[in-house]
Amino acid sequence: MEFKTIEGGVCAAKGFKASGVYCGIKENPTKKNDIAMVVSEVMCNTAGVYTQNKVKGAPVIVTKKNLEKSGGKAKAIIVNSKNANTCNADGEEKANEMCRLTAEALGIKPEEVIVASTGVIGQVLPIEPIKNAVPQLAEKLSYTGNIEAATAIMTTDTVKKEYAVEFEIGGKLCRMGGMAKGSGMIHPNMATTLNFITTDCAVSVSMLQKALSEIVKITYNCLSVDGDQSTNDTCMLMSNGLAGNPEITSEGADFDTFKAALYQVMANLTRMLAKDGEGATKLLTCVCSGAPDLDTAIIVAKSVIRSPLFKCAMFGSDANWGRILCAIGYAEADFDINKVDVSLASKAGKIDVCENGAGVDFSEDEAKKILTEDEIDIYIDLKLGTEKATAWGCDLTYDYVKINGDYRS
Amino acid sequence: MEFKTIEGGVCAAKGFKASGVYCGIKENPTKKNDIAMVVSEVMCNTAGVYTQNKVKGAPVIVTKKNLEKSGGKAKAIIVNSKNANTCNADGEEKANEMCRLTAEALGIKPEEVIVASTGVIGQVLPIEPIKNAVPQLAEKLSYTGNIEAATAIMTTDTVKKEYAVEFEIGGKLCRMGGMAKGSGMIHPNMATTLNFITTDCAVSVSMLQKALSEIVKITYNCLSVDGDQSTNDTCMLMSNGLAGNPEITSEGADFDTFKAALYQVMANLTRMLAKDGEGATKLLTCVCSGAPDLDTAIIVAKSVIRSPLFKCAMFGSDANWGRILCAIGYAEADFDINKVDVSLASKAGKIDVCENGAGVDFSEDEAKKILTEDEIDIYIDLKLGTEKATAWGCDLTYDYVKINGDYRS
Repeated sequence: MEFKTIEGGVCAAKGFKASGVYCGIKENPTKKNDIAMVVSEVMCNTAGVYTQNKVKGAPVIVTKKNLEKSGGKAKAIIVNSKNANTCNADGEEKANEMCRLTAEALGIKPEEVIVASTGVIGQVLPIEPIKNAVPQLAEKLSYTGNIEAATAIMTTDTVKKEYAVEFEIGGKLCRMGGMAKGSGMIHPNMATTLNFITTDCAVSVSMLQKALSEIVKITYNCLSVDGDQSTNDTCMLMSNGLAGNPEITSEGADFDTFKAALYQVMANLTRMLAKDGEGATKLLTCVCSGAPDLDTAIIVAKSVIRSPLFKCAMFGSDANWGRILCAIGYAEADFDINKVDVSLASKAGKIDVCENGAGVDFSEDEAKKILTEDEIDIYIDLKLGTEKATAWGCDLTYDYVKINGDYRS
Repeated sequence: MEFKTIEGGVCAAKGFKASGVYCGIKENPTKKNDIAMVVSEVMCNTAGVYTQNKVKGAPVIVTKKNLEKSGGKAKAIIVNSKNANTCNADGEEKANEMCRLTAEALGIKPEEVIVASTGVIGQVLPIEPIKNAVPQLAEKLSYTGNIEAATAIMTTDTVKKEYAVEFEIGGKLCRMGGMAKGSGMIHPNMATTLNFITTDCAVSVSMLQKALSEIVKITYNCLSVDGDQSTNDTCMLMSNGLAGNPEITSEGADFDTFKAALYQVMANLTRMLAKDGEGATKLLTCVCSGAPDLDTAIIVAKSVIRSPLFKCAMFGSDANWGRILCAIGYAEADFDINKVDVSLASKAGKIDVCENGAGVDFSEDEAKKILTEDEIDIYIDLKLGTEKATAWGCDLTYDYVKINGDYRS
């Protein structure tokens, strides 16, 4: 299933408003937005997946507690960039204060607020700028505020990431849209970085969580920029039901349609995150097919996407396929390396580089032409079964080192 | 125990000769040595640890078979750089041919030869240059050939790596020395890259293997340059017994002394490998103490050493300790993150940056001064027990990207 894409990001679905402003959490001469708010006109069912890092950002802890208290109900998101509010003694206190301020400005309960932060770890979050910003954010909320919000959550991102689709359920037109941020410290093990998806399609809390967990596994969790799993990874899905469809409360055709829409939104946001990986000049998409099971396909595809040596070779447009085989070989999964085929492709063409685990003759000129493009596909066939998975990543470049050798200052 | 270091590398122990020559496995205007031989005058007991990558270089497979056939006995090593002889349809045939040629030149059996290769994966190994070189190598064997040999196994290494010690067992003076190569694709899971250690101390095959496996775990396996586990990792330990000590056949004081000597040789070679990591400007040594068990200490120390973001921060001399906490947090081990202390040190001083999982105030100027040095120590205290481990790595720099964006050509 492929759905029609629409504009509007987190405001694409009916009844969602957003806003973003600059409040000065950190000195910033460009005055780029650094805090955003997303609000639904009516109460939402909400699902979330969070980082599995033992170091959890205070906002992650507070959001989980809020949703437990509210039974998975929420109306608003408050999110800042420039400071992760992580590894701070007063982190939870500050995160709670952000929820309290938001609740007060909107006339809702603090536990109906989702809070998130991204930025430097281990620096005390200044609350004054946020205190000043929250009433402004509430006032500026609009149905076209998605761009202001998507800009506010960017850190080292060079472009904002938004995607939205429309689809039909129970004869009703539904919409779903999302925004995401993340450029470095990206190797999610539950969700990645910050991702907020809103929909007007009515879905129960439990089915919303089921859909999100299933799709996160094959989208965000198949993304790696640098192998560093963040402390603040958060992916939230909010459904306000304003499309008017009969609520999805069980598996079936409607649930499948909903999941297909969710896959399309999340896979496209994942692709955008990979393409805008810190310092990246190339998007790498690795498809592992012929796997005996889905997990094997995911593990193999991610292993290749994560290999620094392979990522450097792609930066240099060098068809050094031995590094692909090496990364397949250390993937922790069961398969027969002597059956593996590998091809490289881009819009300039496709070549086979390895068959049954051994090299095949190919034209280096043709390979160079293919790899000089900025979107490269790597196809791996394990020839053992019918399962398949895609992983997304980017090349490793001088700029990655530059950006991260001097991030705090 | 700390032993006296001596010169001589793989020729430091009695009865070991070595040689190295340039044979032209790959066009090379500098004519750097690309093939080496190490020979013992008498038969050796031999132990080995090898890569756990599913893609195994043909030499790894052949060496294992040889030692099985000979019951762990060997007299010679033949090893080339510039070509890994891996992922080639005729790989085992060529590796066997290398053993046959060596055996013929030395008048020994092919199964008494250890064969190893390092270099590009997936390119057919040209056998003609090797055929020509083997008789030359046999002729040039000498007690001072260790430098020629250590140079021959270098790939992107910028310096040769040798280390040797002397120690006493059963009233006899024993010597042990080794050479190692490896600069990229270093994240060993058994041994790393190529490491050859020779000793004249008499040790049975089974105790030799026991010592090697135990010490590999806390030295080579605690090294990471880039997280890429090579297909050709091989670590060999040969003992010819010429020191005349009573053979070590069981645990006890003699075995402990032998292991202490082996640790000193291997830890120092590991340190040299880390310091000469591809593109590295800084050696990073991470000591995790206060662990409930050895495995936890190793896992935590390696997780930090492997983090690309932390490695970039060290390149930039930036005390971004949040990245250390982040990497500790995603280490797959059990501990309480809220107890963790972290300090940074170098010969310029030492500062605490994190206590009980949260940041502490420190002078950024002092931190900068400490991190501008080229050997940085990271101390992590889990405050849960008495176990401790060290991991070695290096910073991630522009040159790593440069070297690996253009390695094959």
